[in-house]
Amino acid sequence: MLMSLTASSKVFELEKIQLADTEEYILRGGRHLFPLLPKAFAGIKQIGVIGWSSQGPAQAQNLRDSLQGTDIRVKVGLREGSSSQAAAEKVGFTQANGTLGEMYSVISESDLVLLLISDAAQTENYEQIFAALKPGSTLGLSHGFLLGYLQSIGASFPSNINVIGVCPKGMGPSVRRLYEQGKEVNGAGINSSFAVEQDVNGHATDYALGWSVALGSPFTFQTTLESEYRSDIFGERGILLGAIHGVVESLYRWFVSHGYSKEDAFRHSAESVTGPLSKTISKHGLRAVYEGLNDQDKETFKKAYTAAYHPAFEILWEIYQDVASGNEIRSVIDANKRHQRYPMGKIDGTEMWQVGTGVRAQRQEDKIPVDPVTAGIYVAVTVAQVDLLKEYGHPYSEIANESIIEGVDSLNPYMHYKGVSFMIDNCSTTARLGARKWAPRFDYILTQQALPALDQDAQPDAKLFEDFLHNGIHEVLAVCATLRPTVDISVVG
Amino acid sequence: MLMSLTASSKVFELEKIQLADTEEYILRGGRHLFPLLPKAFAGIKQIGVIGWSSQGPAQAQNLRDSLQGTDIRVKVGLREGSSSQAAAEKVGFTQANGTLGEMYSVISESDLVLLLISDAAQTENYEQIFAALKPGSTLGLSHGFLLGYLQSIGASFPSNINVIGVCPKGMGPSVRRLYEQGKEVNGAGINSSFAVEQDVNGHATDYALGWSVALGSPFTFQTTLESEYRSDIFGERGILLGAIHGVVESLYRWFVSHGYSKEDAFRHSAESVTGPLSKTISKHGLRAVYEGLNDQDKETFKKAYTAAYHPAFEILWEIYQDVASGNEIRSVIDANKRHQRYPMGKIDGTEMWQVGTGVRAQRQEDKIPVDPVTAGIYVAVTVAQVDLLKEYGHPYSEIANESIIEGVDSLNPYMHYKGVSFMIDNCSTTARLGARKWAPRFDYILTQQALPALDQDAQPDAKLFEDFLHNGIHEVLAVCATLRPTVDISVVG
Repeated sequence: MLMSLTASSKVFELEKIQLADTEEYILRGGRHLFPLLPKAFAGIKQIGVIGWSSQGPAQAQNLRDSLQGTDIRVKVGLREGSSSQAAAEKVGFTQANGTLGEMYSVISESDLVLLLISDAAQTENYEQIFAALKPGSTLGLSHGFLLGYLQSIGASFPSNINVIGVCPKGMGPSVRRLYEQGKEVNGAGINSSFAVEQDVNGHATDYALGWSVALGSPFTFQTTLESEYRSDIFGERGILLGAIHGVVESLYRWFVSHGYSKEDAFRHSAESVTGPLSKTISKHGLRAVYEGLNDQDKETFKKAYTAAYHPAFEILWEIYQDVASGNEIRSVIDANKRHQRYPMGKIDGTEMWQVGTGVRAQRQEDKIPVDPVTAGIYVAVTVAQVDLLKEYGHPYSEIANESIIEGVDSLNPYMHYKGVSFMIDNCSTTARLGARKWAPRFDYILTQQALPALDQDAQPDAKLFEDFLHNGIHEVLAVCATLRPTVDISVVG
Repeated sequence: MLMSLTASSKVFELEKIQLADTEEYILRGGRHLFPLLPKAFAGIKQIGVIGWSSQGPAQAQNLRDSLQGTDIRVKVGLREGSSSQAAAEKVGFTQANGTLGEMYSVISESDLVLLLISDAAQTENYEQIFAALKPGSTLGLSHGFLLGYLQSIGASFPSNINVIGVCPKGMGPSVRRLYEQGKEVNGAGINSSFAVEQDVNGHATDYALGWSVALGSPFTFQTTLESEYRSDIFGERGILLGAIHGVVESLYRWFVSHGYSKEDAFRHSAESVTGPLSKTISKHGLRAVYEGLNDQDKETFKKAYTAAYHPAFEILWEIYQDVASGNEIRSVIDANKRHQRYPMGKIDGTEMWQVGTGVRAQRQEDKIPVDPVTAGIYVAVTVAQVDLLKEYGHPYSEIANESIIEGVDSLNPYMHYKGVSFMIDNCSTTARLGARKWAPRFDYILTQQALPALDQDAQPDAKLFEDFLHNGIHEVLAVCATLRPTVDISVVG
């Protein structure tokens, strides 16, 4: 599916890395590169950051901080009368100091326009936005959704501008949070992918890399906008948000039905995933979860893994097809119409998440159990997602980030801190909708197929488990671990 | 949305009925009309019935039985090497007696071709099928799916044929079962809608009406193929299959969490719906459910109804949009590709349906409780579906059948007899997929929003409940009841 990726930079030194049987060129980030930013942004006097929802506040502030001392201005653009104005002013973007303005004015006066309004707003206003862009300027996206929409209606970007993408693999709040932590620990940040969709002046690659470095990305890998929107919309419907929610809901009920107290059921499901499992995977990879178990738990893990892999693959495949066919994009746009009558509802008013509040209040971090059933199922869904993305030709950097790193390093810590809604509802509308749509599907298929297989003590599929032990993703994660910042996200801040 | 409906027949006497504030022309069926069939089928020497899945066996047998003694031959067409050949031969369609053949041969030699192969097979083979049809012959569909597909790819039916639809509002097995019962009780059968999409020889309306009468439809109402496929694909994802499944799953868990034994939880959820609630609605309409309760239960019903109506409406609206945009059609076609690797899985291996098997074995029909929470929620989802179809301009006959009559008279009795899978998996692939896709969504939104509102004893929305009491659907159901056969389906046979 991918066009061949061949980035070359006049400013930054790209690094060739071996990811299992593939090679990729990446950029290792860090604050020591900030002095190169003026050169990377050659010709850019103003960066307009349009929108103030999830990514807007994070990116505007990170860029401003990273460009301090240069003559490049970062200016926020908002809709006339936007309710976000006060929030932007509170962190220093004001009309008085010339860093806050009406969105179309900011678009027309900026050399690089980062369009961070919601996906639905992009699709509604793209014609007016395109008309406002200066010829020769650069449109920056943090998500390929708009490309997907244009493809679905047979439209395209104006031909006289650069179009680039820098797509952080984490929600806005984590992009800001880790950047702040990175002031003390160089390199702390959220990984990003970058894409060059159109390059009219030969600077598009360096604009993208400069943008990513300025956001604090510890490692930046290349993709295309199409590959990005597919893997991103898919990934958040899968293990990053939708699947993890469905998985822990189904497990919570299963533990309760096997006689666990509600509190223990929560500990063995949600807490187990967002606590010890996420930490192990983040530092040591997926196979380490299995290898850290005792012999009996290893057997249980095997059974759970092989019972869950195929049901999960089936739903993931459906999601991927729905993203690739444009169904999910159409459905997000339609949802926007419904929200005027029915705003998105609450997902954590149920017993499980009420119990979770109590469990968190009494949490002893080192007493959270590593449950082998939960571990086997969570890892199985993750690996099914990895395998599916590989089948569809996505590069390993993208696969590792959209299936594993974004989850364990950026999203799961939010659920660990305050529950499922604090994770899902801090993400984009597209993500929130997708999680609501697909979580129940994972829950049902696991409850209907995987958990009954466990209850009947079905023997594990030995071949499938061998495949897991030798999956290329383990080597990939080992390389990614060397690129990982030494600091963990601290969401409490 | 609908074109104006103005059927007129040269053979049958249509009847004008008043349905709330609208008028429709319908045909009351019955065996006394069989002598008119040769006139209705003027020019038709052979009816080819293509396919042998849900509708094929029922329609081929009903048509053959109804046309006995005429010179119109009913011939079944199957794919070369079809595994259904034995089943067709077992009920008398054989190559030896000239009533069984290869599908394309049967298509090319028939004057009326009833295309009853699966939706996916229709979309894969439509070009070859259209090419095989005799100029001036008639293509009959029992579902507008193919039209939806053609619309989504910008294609159309050949212009030199009639295109008609007769769409029974029940699964194939019930179309046959009630026809057999109708041998003793004239008029027993499944209602059908009919549509005339193309009429090249002026006979299309009577061909459609004749086909419907021959199937045993007690009442036949007019629609368009577009309105049919929208309401049909939507309806089965809604209360007919998807929603009823999700509703009873969420209620079962809710009763268990409130201290009911598993058996009682099953009785108060699934049994309550498929037993007394379905019977009351079938004979006396939706409002009768409420009116039959004591004062305390009436209050509970009100609370449950108003807590569930809006969450249900929200999901139903999403389904309707996904059907109207072509998403559901694309998704069914994509699913077909997945099924070669992952056949559709089992939905009733879970605790609830295992418990159900035991409950059914000890069932005392007159001891099944009418639970007011279950009643309020089931009726709310039903009325939300009615209201949504009305907003989108569907005729009341279609609304009543796709939201109520097909459920209580045809589908729910199957679930009552043998559980959820016996109901859902006896339907078309399109229906089975849709039920699997949307049941979990209803379950989640009710569990997240409606049931917590009940637990918090939220006061009912008085205006919303007034709207229910005065909903036009009650008058419509009263009229439909006069058209209902006096016999109930007996699925045991």
